Amino acid sequence: MNVSALAQLQNVVGHHLAAVVGVIDDELESDLPAVARLCRDLAAYRGKMLRPTLVLLSAEACGGVRRQHLVLAAVTEIVHLATLVHDDVLDEADLRRGKPTIHRLHGNEAAVLLGDYLISHAYHLCSSLDSQHAARRIAATTNTVCEGELMQVAHRGDWSLGEDEYFEIIRRKTAALTGVCCELGAYFAAAAPETVEQLSLYGHDLGIAFQIVDDLLDLTADEAEAGKSTGRDADMGKLTLPLIHLLRHADQPTRDRVTATLSAGAFNAVGLNGDDSQLVDSIEYAAGLARGYVQSAVARLSDLPAGPAKDALIAAAEFVSQRRR
Amino acid sequence: MNVSALAQLQNVVGHHLAAVVGVIDDELESDLPAVARLCRDLAAYRGKMLRPTLVLLSAEACGGVRRQHLVLAAVTEIVHLATLVHDDVLDEADLRRGKPTIHRLHGNEAAVLLGDYLISHAYHLCSSLDSQHAARRIAATTNTVCEGELMQVAHRGDWSLGEDEYFEIIRRKTAALTGVCCELGAYFAAAAPETVEQLSLYGHDLGIAFQIVDDLLDLTADEAEAGKSTGRDADMGKLTLPLIHLLRHADQPTRDRVTATLSAGAFNAVGLNGDDSQLVDSIEYAAGLARGYVQSAVARLSDLPAGPAKDALIAAAEFVSQRRR
Repeated sequence: MNVSALAQLQNVVGHHLAAVVGVIDDELESDLPAVARLCRDLAAYRGKMLRPTLVLLSAEACGGVRRQHLVLAAVTEIVHLATLVHDDVLDEADLRRGKPTIHRLHGNEAAVLLGDYLISHAYHLCSSLDSQHAARRIAATTNTVCEGELMQVAHRGDWSLGEDEYFEIIRRKTAALTGVCCELGAYFAAAAPETVEQLSLYGHDLGIAFQIVDDLLDLTADEAEAGKSTGRDADMGKLTLPLIHLLRHADQPTRDRVTATLSAGAFNAVGLNGDDSQLVDSIEYAAGLARGYVQSAVARLSDLPAGPAKDALIAAAEFVSQRRR
Repeated sequence: MNVSALAQLQNVVGHHLAAVVGVIDDELESDLPAVARLCRDLAAYRGKMLRPTLVLLSAEACGGVRRQHLVLAAVTEIVHLATLVHDDVLDEADLRRGKPTIHRLHGNEAAVLLGDYLISHAYHLCSSLDSQHAARRIAATTNTVCEGELMQVAHRGDWSLGEDEYFEIIRRKTAALTGVCCELGAYFAAAAPETVEQLSLYGHDLGIAFQIVDDLLDLTADEAEAGKSTGRDADMGKLTLPLIHLLRHADQPTRDRVTATLSAGAFNAVGLNGDDSQLVDSIEYAAGLARGYVQSAVARLSDLPAGPAKDALIAAAEFVSQRRR
């Protein structure tokens, strides 16, 4: 399954997604030339619209998309864009979706400030809703996302990072946002509290699977395929699931070799040793865990009524574990 | 007048200010050790509490401080702390209030993320209020602050920056926040719309004066007196009012000399030439404009009832133009 499979499942809410793009564009419009130029270059960051899709499909599966969902979907995408822009600062990344990053094009300062501008506009847009509930939940979520990112930075170069800590980091930095997308999609469709809870858990599981696969792609994809700088996690001192597994389970010579490569920041240059069966095992282990989270996500949907929205939510979870970029 | 003069005028709302500190501490508490450590180091950034003081004095002058004011005052201080943390990233500053900056202590990444964490918590705290009005106004203000910062970065190294552009930048990056402090202080004390408007204008004028003086101190104060890295504005390519004036009004040899020093990024090293009467004139010009904004700010208060809160607002404006750090 690839990006076109995502486009197919998005057809269920296609006209709403187009409206969300309009809401985002209106919110980010600026009469200041310097700001408008940055926002134009930001267009290259727009990709899958996964988070708006989750808001809209959750709403559709729980009774239908309302006006608030369009605003909420736009808010989650702007929050996501802000995290991408600041992530590229932290990772000193040069490429994003095959295009130069804001950080590369305009420097560290403009990228820090553009991220701030985006997060400010996300809350500004959110405050246009009648209810404080969405603002409270979105802000609680961004608190958690920041904590996850701060944990990750605190563990840079920590080659003893364990699986529990890895999952705690990705739960916060990624799954919290996909979880709240589905939760608020259901909540603002007036779903029952149990349904809101199950959709929230679906979004969490999906987010965990998404991040594991993202980390795998950073190790295994080539840059042209992934459309962004790859192989950087390890060289930036970020241990991800396959390497955590390898450093726990490989034989001592392999562990020593990998630790030395990591400590030298040379993982990207040295590359994966394709005939190293222990690394292949660790990659398969991580991919297997991702598949498990996808199955768990799908199981959360069991009580939803059958229909195209439910089918699309199932397909979204499967897309996440099978994507190539 | 010095910092103790500020402490004196803050006595009018002293017990409320103590409560605001408690609200801030509660909001920023984290069970993650890495986050808690950053927040502890952030304590060095806490200084004058000028913005909470403006919220509380405006409330007091318009009928009295209510519970919402404590929350709002905390929100404005957390927003301010976030801008300080990110400013230190942009300016690569080493010192703040005589202590090493977060950027210096923990690096670029942690400082970017701590700023994000703070802004997220500011909105989270704001969303605890019953009314969307504060959230809407705060977010609109942070939109404006980010625009001002982005304008400033876009004009780095622009030695032809004019006074109009300088005022547009500081109106957005500084005066918007002090303005909304006073506006919301009055609004949530149920002041009449004209009074809310006058307080907003007072806060704007005060903010403009504050920033002019801040920029002057960067040029004229020594580091020990200012408690932070000084002389950096010019070397970071930021023209401020005295230099804008000098580059327009000094004789040609002086303008050539200053432009050459600026282009070499050597303004801090070369320092102020004390016997250069043209530079002294330009500094006096900027200080005169700051005094004018203070007078304008005080005039906005004419319809407020006499009393300690009004007196303190007047004293706050005067403090701003006379402070040494």
